[in-house]
Amino acid sequence: MNVLLVLAHPETASLNGSLHRFMLERLTAAGHSVRVSDLYAMRWKPALDADDFPARDTAARFDPALDSQQAFEAGTQTADIAAEQEKLLWADAVILQFPLWWYSMPAILKGWIERIYAYGFAYGVGEHSDTHWGDRFGEGVMAGKRAMLVVTTGGWASHYAPRGINGPMDDLLFPIHHGILYYPGFDVLSPYVVHRTHKVDEAAYARITDELGQRLDTLFTADPIPFRRQNAGDYEIPALTLREHIAPGRTGFAAHTA
Amino acid sequence: MNVLLVLAHPETASLNGSLHRFMLERLTAAGHSVRVSDLYAMRWKPALDADDFPARDTAARFDPALDSQQAFEAGTQTADIAAEQEKLLWADAVILQFPLWWYSMPAILKGWIERIYAYGFAYGVGEHSDTHWGDRFGEGVMAGKRAMLVVTTGGWASHYAPRGINGPMDDLLFPIHHGILYYPGFDVLSPYVVHRTHKVDEAAYARITDELGQRLDTLFTADPIPFRRQNAGDYEIPALTLREHIAPGRTGFAAHTA
Repeated sequence: MNVLLVLAHPETASLNGSLHRFMLERLTAAGHSVRVSDLYAMRWKPALDADDFPARDTAARFDPALDSQQAFEAGTQTADIAAEQEKLLWADAVILQFPLWWYSMPAILKGWIERIYAYGFAYGVGEHSDTHWGDRFGEGVMAGKRAMLVVTTGGWASHYAPRGINGPMDDLLFPIHHGILYYPGFDVLSPYVVHRTHKVDEAAYARITDELGQRLDTLFTADPIPFRRQNAGDYEIPALTLREHIAPGRTGFAAHTA
Repeated sequence: MNVLLVLAHPETASLNGSLHRFMLERLTAAGHSVRVSDLYAMRWKPALDADDFPARDTAARFDPALDSQQAFEAGTQTADIAAEQEKLLWADAVILQFPLWWYSMPAILKGWIERIYAYGFAYGVGEHSDTHWGDRFGEGVMAGKRAMLVVTTGGWASHYAPRGINGPMDDLLFPIHHGILYYPGFDVLSPYVVHRTHKVDEAAYARITDELGQRLDTLFTADPIPFRRQNAGDYEIPALTLREHIAPGRTGFAAHTA
């Protein structure tokens, strides 16, 4: 199968760098084709701006959605954006690997999403009607592909526990899992998370690569997170609120997992 | 009072641009001193990397925390980083204004946080003991200052309701409110959120500026979100989980609000 590894860490001689190389080797040894987007090494341009659309009408005001739609449809996107979109279309699975910085992904990775998720490619896909509100949350261009996060933190696991001060890791990652990956159609696997990165010694590293290796071995067989499909009857349309009989009385992120 | 307006939108002729100018005028007319960080206009460098630390030992591996600590303490940070830190220290209140892109802040604003939140400035402050785990979550360099988000979305309010498909807006913003603003000591006010930006006509704009104006008029008097203080007895240290008798049985982000 085809696997795209996306890495957002500025230092190759880091735990993240080591884990990236481990994943590359493990997946290759398993017979997969692997491609890499090492965002810092590529000097990826993080900020979505008008420069991304060289063919746009410069007399008009810049509209990120409209301009990305026009450039995507006309084939006038910049080469760096088109190349990353092609990698996503090529991939059967995508792994986003990053250190958790200020409770989310690093800016360079957020900007990778913002710039390559064009209107017509990752959103603004499909019809809107009384029963269907675009091809999203379970449908979309990435349907049939899998995605997984590999995340490192300096903090302790307990700090990210259900009653931990940082908030539960599942909730911190929900906007990425559900809002960035499930939205355009990916099946999303549980994340692999490493805590207390500064305490990782040889024994811990051996345990981590053992666990992570098993996650890679089951990349195409593990059950994804059972997020609810938007257009399959669980939601009122167009309000997009859960119908009364679905998860009755529940609110918040977890209500969107069946 | 001193107010810092931080704007992360690439087009001045946008709703965000108009609201930015409205806030600047309203606050100035009320007698406040206002400074601006218009990140796109400044062409802010979003990605935290080794180039941010020109005095670092290039033979050593790059460690974002350690290198930022050394540069902060030695006064060898880049001029753009030091200038933004000075603005934060100057401000009595900070307003972060941005369109919600993929359920969080734009990359350029995330990178503003990552680069100016140096170790020793926004984290890594204060002692760690059995009763005190750093000056954070209610203490820190920003203690006594206020912060507020002004956020725009294309989606409907119902999509961000307690049972809306995007997840509740309060939960989507929790990592920013609690993890980015409360962490170094800000008192955080409720956000001001505009939905369905593409449907804002003159009447809606009048309503929005009326509401937003009232929020600015009470910027220094409104009650902040009552997040729990880390070092005041609600949390086990160092596990940083809520003590059993605090919000018993509750989990998730909302448990950290008293």
